[in-house]
Amino acid sequence: MQINIGILGLGTVGCGTVEVLRRNAALISERSGCDLRVTRIATRTPDKTRPVEVDKSLISGDVDAVLNDPEIHIVAELIGGVEPARDYVLRAIAAGKSVVTANKELIAKHGAEIDAAATAAGVDFLFEGSVGGGIPIIAPLRDSLAGNRALQLMGILNGTTNYILTKMTREGLGYAEVLSEAQSLGYAETDPTADVDGWDAMYKLSILAGIAFDTPISLDDIYREGIRKISARDIEYATELGYVIKLLAIARQHPNGELEMRVHPALLPQTHPLANVNEVFNAVLISGDAVGDVMFYGRGAGMEPTGSAVVGDLVAVARRLKNGASVAHAGEKVRPNSATIRDFAEFETHFCVRMQVSDRPGVLAQIATIFGDKGVSLESIVQKKTDGDSSQSDTAEIFWMTHRTTQRAMARSLNEFNRLEVVREVSSVLRVEGE
Amino acid sequence: MQINIGILGLGTVGCGTVEVLRRNAALISERSGCDLRVTRIATRTPDKTRPVEVDKSLISGDVDAVLNDPEIHIVAELIGGVEPARDYVLRAIAAGKSVVTANKELIAKHGAEIDAAATAAGVDFLFEGSVGGGIPIIAPLRDSLAGNRALQLMGILNGTTNYILTKMTREGLGYAEVLSEAQSLGYAETDPTADVDGWDAMYKLSILAGIAFDTPISLDDIYREGIRKISARDIEYATELGYVIKLLAIARQHPNGELEMRVHPALLPQTHPLANVNEVFNAVLISGDAVGDVMFYGRGAGMEPTGSAVVGDLVAVARRLKNGASVAHAGEKVRPNSATIRDFAEFETHFCVRMQVSDRPGVLAQIATIFGDKGVSLESIVQKKTDGDSSQSDTAEIFWMTHRTTQRAMARSLNEFNRLEVVREVSSVLRVEGE
Repeated sequence: MQINIGILGLGTVGCGTVEVLRRNAALISERSGCDLRVTRIATRTPDKTRPVEVDKSLISGDVDAVLNDPEIHIVAELIGGVEPARDYVLRAIAAGKSVVTANKELIAKHGAEIDAAATAAGVDFLFEGSVGGGIPIIAPLRDSLAGNRALQLMGILNGTTNYILTKMTREGLGYAEVLSEAQSLGYAETDPTADVDGWDAMYKLSILAGIAFDTPISLDDIYREGIRKISARDIEYATELGYVIKLLAIARQHPNGELEMRVHPALLPQTHPLANVNEVFNAVLISGDAVGDVMFYGRGAGMEPTGSAVVGDLVAVARRLKNGASVAHAGEKVRPNSATIRDFAEFETHFCVRMQVSDRPGVLAQIATIFGDKGVSLESIVQKKTDGDSSQSDTAEIFWMTHRTTQRAMARSLNEFNRLEVVREVSSVLRVEGE
Repeated sequence: MQINIGILGLGTVGCGTVEVLRRNAALISERSGCDLRVTRIATRTPDKTRPVEVDKSLISGDVDAVLNDPEIHIVAELIGGVEPARDYVLRAIAAGKSVVTANKELIAKHGAEIDAAATAAGVDFLFEGSVGGGIPIIAPLRDSLAGNRALQLMGILNGTTNYILTKMTREGLGYAEVLSEAQSLGYAETDPTADVDGWDAMYKLSILAGIAFDTPISLDDIYREGIRKISARDIEYATELGYVIKLLAIARQHPNGELEMRVHPALLPQTHPLANVNEVFNAVLISGDAVGDVMFYGRGAGMEPTGSAVVGDLVAVARRLKNGASVAHAGEKVRPNSATIRDFAEFETHFCVRMQVSDRPGVLAQIATIFGDKGVSLESIVQKKTDGDSSQSDTAEIFWMTHRTTQRAMARSLNEFNRLEVVREVSSVLRVEGE
């Protein structure tokens, strides 16, 4: 059976998809029992030179030609961003075509709407490439792990920030320096906001959590904090104490049903399975009630890795069409957005607090008393003379690590410190996970 | 839609499957759009007390009652071993039922026959639980990664041996001591052959390689070597040089199409993604031409983890039945057992050779000359006085690490050493991977 594919967008992912389909055509046809053929490609820049071999006669600037072609079975939306991608996807679905995409922002913001449209139209809407590049995560979570109640997801979902943190750790460099190097290497965008402020990881977490917990996730319900404030000094302490610092995306369902979702940098023990996920690699650790912990690891982005995920989805739709089935997930996941969201103030973690204080007797006791009064119990303390500037030689640096405590108790402690003359500065407050 | 399931075997995996289906019934029904109901269970020991809640009225000793029940859609074969499992599976298929199993030995030995029978009968035959317990590996490899030409699989596929090697490494203990401890804890069988001699890992490798390289694998084509000969001393050297020792299962396709498949202990750099897979955990690192390296990690065995995999397969069949599709993989993978197998003598790896030699001048040069004559070039050498027994004080121990070389060249060198008076003993020969 011949399956005709229309591609919207011929950037990195579009080129990767076209290249994988071309290079492995024989293999894919043998495995799927279908001939997957790209019959039209629409791009804003039809004349641009591409890094891969593409039949020029397929390329045009005309999106409508793809959306209106009755011969096309599947549209691969590989433009990115919300509009006009959303409009194109909905039009393709309305025209009875299945849609495959790698567009995390679109799914995070409009996934429920598009899912509903696809179900109503009896077509597939698949998006494996939207999380973790080519790593199979969404399909295994939905299919192989379907027998599990998900307890927790914990992931390193953004390659750029993981590259920056890995480099800072290995070379002892500061954030700004590594960021500009990453930008010059093309690992970070000129405007790095989406990555370094955790937006990208948040979109991906919302997609995974939606599947794992069978409910649409509102982005407003995810706490988000980026890596801009992480300093070489924080990493130094973390290393000394046996930890690494990672930008983690975490979603957890509490026994009472409440969902807790957050994206933020955190200390992770060096022995934790996610601690050795370095550079641009991504990984997701899923805890299910039956399976225990399973982890998926690989390159979180890139032309061919993401192309691999898109092609996997195209094969899934092709097999479905060949086998004469209605869509795989039709009529499933009817649960509305019903989850109760745990209040941010109730989040419980270990914390690390690094602060500059007056180097004189009694200061440590004063601060420890405040922690105690607010119900924060302490696990360990490292105190050092502040390095460098001799004018600051009357300042000491203290690095506190607390036992599990709520965000509320920590915030109250920090409030007190702001009023305390001996605390010159609270330099960083970081969570600790995986213990 | 109600899907009726008949279960054969109520041991560890059977109990896990029944328990997961019972505990998460509501969730599974919501996700699959089907009511998965266990309607019959056959076991040789109907009256035995089980660690999970099972409706006793479903249990009997009568396999035929399951196989002949026209109301049953899916048979889960959870007996293990080749016969009578093979007979039951073929009869279930002949009766038009789909079959789900976790039986690696059965698939490794008769997978092609059963696949053909299932295809002819138009039913599904799924076996996610046969490799890696609950870790989704087979479905992702077949589906999400369908766009990739597989280059290599490398896995830690046996939990028992990984537990033993982890324990030996962490506590500096010998093989025999750790084995008997593992046996008393129930982590190793009274007859540990299947695990420690690499049979179990070999079965699993043949299953994965068959899918990855689209061809049935003959077990005779897999080189196999177990962990019985690994000593505390080998691990000591490995650790000192920055390596761990793991029982690896490796399948690789060379650019000329030749398959190289082997199961053996090997040194792996401590920074390798598989090096931190410890205790009873399993992991598979798959290298695809498009996706690069992806790794799947989790518990490789156990009641509920394997139950999770079986339930995932049951859900897949249920969805297929509900959606009115013909089987997912019908008409695919028609390629016969056509792969050329690389000759063992041509396998190329780094090697480590530990030997006891006469502690006198010129010995090292004599041995190095033999390596050189046979075309083996050396990467590093560690020489130590042999510890302990003073009668051996004229003996030194040398640990050689070679550059990449063929099995043939290594075997020829070892032959020469056997003839050499100054080489008292070749204590171990181990491969090095992941560099």
